[in-house]
Amino acid sequence: MGSANTAHEARLLSRRNAITNTSGLAPGYLQANLLALPSRYAQDFHDLCLRNPVSCPLLGVTPRGNPHKAQCIKTDDFDLRSDFPAYRVYKNGRCIDRRRDLHEIWASEHVGFLIGCSFSFEDALTQAGLQPRHQKIGTIVPMYRTNIPLLPAGIFTGACCIVSMRPYKPGDVEKVRDVTRPYLETHGEPVAWGWDGATRLGIEDVRRPDFGEPQVFEEGEIPVFWVGLSPHEALLLTNCTGLRCHASSCRRIGRRQG
Amino acid sequence: MGSANTAHEARLLSRRNAITNTSGLAPGYLQANLLALPSRYAQDFHDLCLRNPVSCPLLGVTPRGNPHKAQCIKTDDFDLRSDFPAYRVYKNGRCIDRRRDLHEIWASEHVGFLIGCSFSFEDALTQAGLQPRHQKIGTIVPMYRTNIPLLPAGIFTGACCIVSMRPYKPGDVEKVRDVTRPYLETHGEPVAWGWDGATRLGIEDVRRPDFGEPQVFEEGEIPVFWVGLSPHEALLLTNCTGLRCHASSCRRIGRRQG
Repeated sequence: MGSANTAHEARLLSRRNAITNTSGLAPGYLQANLLALPSRYAQDFHDLCLRNPVSCPLLGVTPRGNPHKAQCIKTDDFDLRSDFPAYRVYKNGRCIDRRRDLHEIWASEHVGFLIGCSFSFEDALTQAGLQPRHQKIGTIVPMYRTNIPLLPAGIFTGACCIVSMRPYKPGDVEKVRDVTRPYLETHGEPVAWGWDGATRLGIEDVRRPDFGEPQVFEEGEIPVFWVGLSPHEALLLTNCTGLRCHASSCRRIGRRQG
Repeated sequence: MGSANTAHEARLLSRRNAITNTSGLAPGYLQANLLALPSRYAQDFHDLCLRNPVSCPLLGVTPRGNPHKAQCIKTDDFDLRSDFPAYRVYKNGRCIDRRRDLHEIWASEHVGFLIGCSFSFEDALTQAGLQPRHQKIGTIVPMYRTNIPLLPAGIFTGACCIVSMRPYKPGDVEKVRDVTRPYLETHGEPVAWGWDGATRLGIEDVRRPDFGEPQVFEEGEIPVFWVGLSPHEALLLTNCTGLRCHASSCRRIGRRQG
């Protein structure tokens, strides 16, 4: 692919540090989150993704030390050290730094994992007349820790699933499920819905999310929960040094046939 | 492949109704459980497997109405209507019949799903000197319903993960995890261990399994839990007519590289 597509444009904007967020960019392309780890943890993290594909929908893995290639990247002009808008660096389970690129700290031992981002299915909801409230009012989607364990893989043990929440009318839930179901690579259909659903997930107060911003409910609406990106929860539990960033667009959205 | 392998021999024994169980047969081959459904439910069930690969590790799917082919079957001499030792027929969430073959009831609308069976990783435990207790004493592995939801897919909504339990000494848990970790197609490494682990899974009394037989603990041993075959739980929640049977061997065991 040449430069004449919006995914490539979004990557170039990130590379020039001209944007801080890719929400809404490159419609029709799958967006990916990046998580990079020293190679000694890569097999366990790969297993974590394969065992928890809804939390950690793996789109591609880089060769060790090579920031230019992954299965989902269909271009030669890709550099994961710069093509995401912003990065966080973790050590011993804590965020120790924020950076606009990784040129100084990407090392030959690093392996990068590209993981599907829910920005993709939100486009589909909007096109179906079901635009998520947080997009409409410009807030960050509310997210919650749940009591659902991530299935452990090697050193990545003890983390839980994170869910994101969007309010809908009860009569729209089946349509919302249908619209998001085909997006298996970007968390797919909801895991639970309704106030009972929140309780079953172990969420004590829907008005107080663990991450993101609280959401307004209109009369009669109920919360609808999707499993969201959870691998950083696993990262926080280990003492390995990890690099994380949020959403750079890669290939066209994969929607399963059927 | 000709007839000169133990997997084929096991299938022929099933076909002649000469065995009722495949436990211990065809060592080194992956064993599969079968679940067959009318094709209108096939896409949802396929999604259920892809979203819950540890509970429902999908090895292959038949074409609609064709009982002879699936991705994991590497022989022309396969008939899923006869090559499993025994079958159960479900309707409206209840088992309504048991059969030795499906010749009279397999229909052109059926789609068969072949799902990995834990018989495979138990061989690996035995070879590592960690033979599961229930194999040693000849009982059925104890199984429990948990509070971990199967991630819903279409009509398959509201089911929970089933776990199987094997007692081990605390000092053996890391070895047990290492031995079973590579068997991603047959439930992989444990989901939880220890008496605390049982509580976290919502298991009230480890001595009283929901399925299988209770297990004896020796001094100092703790329970180790694996996610087990759970798709029939989903089946029980629907009112579709499903066909189920347990374990026929198919291709050689897949152990991930690394």
